[in-house]
Amino acid sequence: MLGNFSYCNPTKLYFGKDAIQGLNEELPKYGKNVLLVYGGGSIKKNGIYDRVVEILKANGKIIAEDAGVMPNPTIEKVYEGCERAKKCNADLILAVGGGSVCDYAKAVSVSVYCKEDPWEKYYIRFEEPDNKIIPVGCVLTMVGTGSEMNGGSVITNFSQKLKIGKVFGEEVFPKFSVLDPEYTFTLPKYQMVSGFFDIMSHLLEQYFSGTDDNTSDYIIEGLLRSLIHSAQIAVNNPLDYEARSNIMWTATWALNTLVAKGKDTDWEVHMLGQAVSAHTDATHGMTLAAVSLPYYRFILPYGLSKFKRYALNVWDVDGTGKTDEEIAEEGLKAMKAWMRKIGLVMNLRDLGVKEEMIDGLVKSTLVMTGGYKVLTAEDIRNIFKASL
Amino acid sequence: MLGNFSYCNPTKLYFGKDAIQGLNEELPKYGKNVLLVYGGGSIKKNGIYDRVVEILKANGKIIAEDAGVMPNPTIEKVYEGCERAKKCNADLILAVGGGSVCDYAKAVSVSVYCKEDPWEKYYIRFEEPDNKIIPVGCVLTMVGTGSEMNGGSVITNFSQKLKIGKVFGEEVFPKFSVLDPEYTFTLPKYQMVSGFFDIMSHLLEQYFSGTDDNTSDYIIEGLLRSLIHSAQIAVNNPLDYEARSNIMWTATWALNTLVAKGKDTDWEVHMLGQAVSAHTDATHGMTLAAVSLPYYRFILPYGLSKFKRYALNVWDVDGTGKTDEEIAEEGLKAMKAWMRKIGLVMNLRDLGVKEEMIDGLVKSTLVMTGGYKVLTAEDIRNIFKASL
Repeated sequence: MLGNFSYCNPTKLYFGKDAIQGLNEELPKYGKNVLLVYGGGSIKKNGIYDRVVEILKANGKIIAEDAGVMPNPTIEKVYEGCERAKKCNADLILAVGGGSVCDYAKAVSVSVYCKEDPWEKYYIRFEEPDNKIIPVGCVLTMVGTGSEMNGGSVITNFSQKLKIGKVFGEEVFPKFSVLDPEYTFTLPKYQMVSGFFDIMSHLLEQYFSGTDDNTSDYIIEGLLRSLIHSAQIAVNNPLDYEARSNIMWTATWALNTLVAKGKDTDWEVHMLGQAVSAHTDATHGMTLAAVSLPYYRFILPYGLSKFKRYALNVWDVDGTGKTDEEIAEEGLKAMKAWMRKIGLVMNLRDLGVKEEMIDGLVKSTLVMTGGYKVLTAEDIRNIFKASL
Repeated sequence: MLGNFSYCNPTKLYFGKDAIQGLNEELPKYGKNVLLVYGGGSIKKNGIYDRVVEILKANGKIIAEDAGVMPNPTIEKVYEGCERAKKCNADLILAVGGGSVCDYAKAVSVSVYCKEDPWEKYYIRFEEPDNKIIPVGCVLTMVGTGSEMNGGSVITNFSQKLKIGKVFGEEVFPKFSVLDPEYTFTLPKYQMVSGFFDIMSHLLEQYFSGTDDNTSDYIIEGLLRSLIHSAQIAVNNPLDYEARSNIMWTATWALNTLVAKGKDTDWEVHMLGQAVSAHTDATHGMTLAAVSLPYYRFILPYGLSKFKRYALNVWDVDGTGKTDEEIAEEGLKAMKAWMRKIGLVMNLRDLGVKEEMIDGLVKSTLVMTGGYKVLTAEDIRNIFKASL
């Protein structure tokens, strides 16, 4: 059943080849000071930086830069970004990069004029902004997080060994995002498939929750089928525009609030994965890949009918003459085979986790209540052990 | 492949039981003069009118009324609505009803300050508004058209025997829509299932076009599966909230621009159906139901692989040992059985069409170019004959 909700997604998207031209429609809406935020500098090698700067200048903008946003952006970096945004009196924060850069830009946007410590306010107490928010725009260069069309912002505090995702409201969503599938072509394969699994995990986190019938689960099944199909093509040929464009679009709709409307959601896989990231700085999507199957095997008995439906509707398992358990298990096997085939990391050891780190991981894992089983510390320990 | 596009849907939705409370959040954003638009007065019997007026008054609004919007709203009625809107100096047009009332409200919203004949400007020359547009809000009481979250506005000109749908841009989309599934409970069954087929037709018009792989077709398959499942439940028990809420949500996403993004679309079934409405004033969804199977049978050879996919992915046809043609045909048979089961009108005679009217219907049918076969006048004639 669809519960009560309100829905509005104000982000304007420019999608396709040369979508960067959309900046010419958006930039005139903002003042002249732009804080250009990006990561490790790959955009300087592939020409995207030059293209963006050229368009900013043609629109009369004064550019201040905030480079070096790391894959798991830290709260210390956010403090630094706030200083830069204040110094240049930023009218717009333009994030050029993947989900981490977008997440970071949103964190800075709500923190510049925040009167207290934004880590405490937003990431510990989960409060909403009550101060001026600097508008954010995105030029996406990596696909997976959905950050280009939502209010999510994951920030890591290494000193506290916490990686926490805050979901802000519509007023923090990017005002616009540029989605050119060709901008993702130069991404190394490891990051590419990591992003693919991030998308899958977003869909599964929202799917494996609730027992009633709702339209959102049907939409999720469609998005999963598209992703599974296109990911295999993209791994064989990362320059396949059709596959990469489908995956880019799927990623956006996997986490822009739509498929969660009116239904329960889980997010425990992300809690397990974020604990791993907080201890190892491993790539986000790979942490999810390493823990997903052990987690789903563990909760399968508690959500059997949904796992059966998953096998039949997403993996086309032939259910003839099989028990529900057998059908459900066959779905997870098909998922495992697909994960191996596209080159995902299948265990935590490959991400640098050692047995003696498990106590720490358990402590860093937040427990969610929307899934088919609320995990105990012992459950979490067993899942991490099975993921090693 | 996903072609280039931009996407933004600014409509704010309030969904669920007592969603009407959302008016209290929206009304303060507009001036005090509200033109309340509705249809034949059923909202006065089921209490929705009283509820809306009460909230409008509690928000200090001055209400002018424009009642009697007909199922296929006419351009003459639009002229009348413009006079009323001008007279009360409307700051907001609040449409309470189904798709016709919403379509009508949008037509009035762009026509009040239009300096020339809006029929000529918008519906014949398909131009965009370049004058002041009065904001529109909707309270939906019938499900099907998707008008609550798009820029569509279908208006009929009986003297010209034309029913034409204009698709306006984002600035004409409703600012907000209230979607309470319980508000649709009192709708007579004939109108209810007519709306169900309107939803299905919107999805199929966008599905049966193009031969390449794209995410939108996967989303459409999901929405179709949800609709097919819930429609059967709703027909057995119109008070089943779960089924009615799923159908309401599916209807919105079937035609709010999303699933058409980056792909070709057809819309020939709507052209055939609209020709029938222009000559008979038959219920929209039923006109689509009466012509769909003859049309799809006719174009099947030109889009065989998509019809095969439709059979497998939407109707769960078992393809083992069958030719593509057999699989595709079995899909249409399953669709026909479902249509009969939920009580749709399966031929044009039941809608008052006689053989001698076919010449006129052919003349009133616009020919689209996005489907698998561009129809000749002879094709159209044959399809109408097969639909009798």
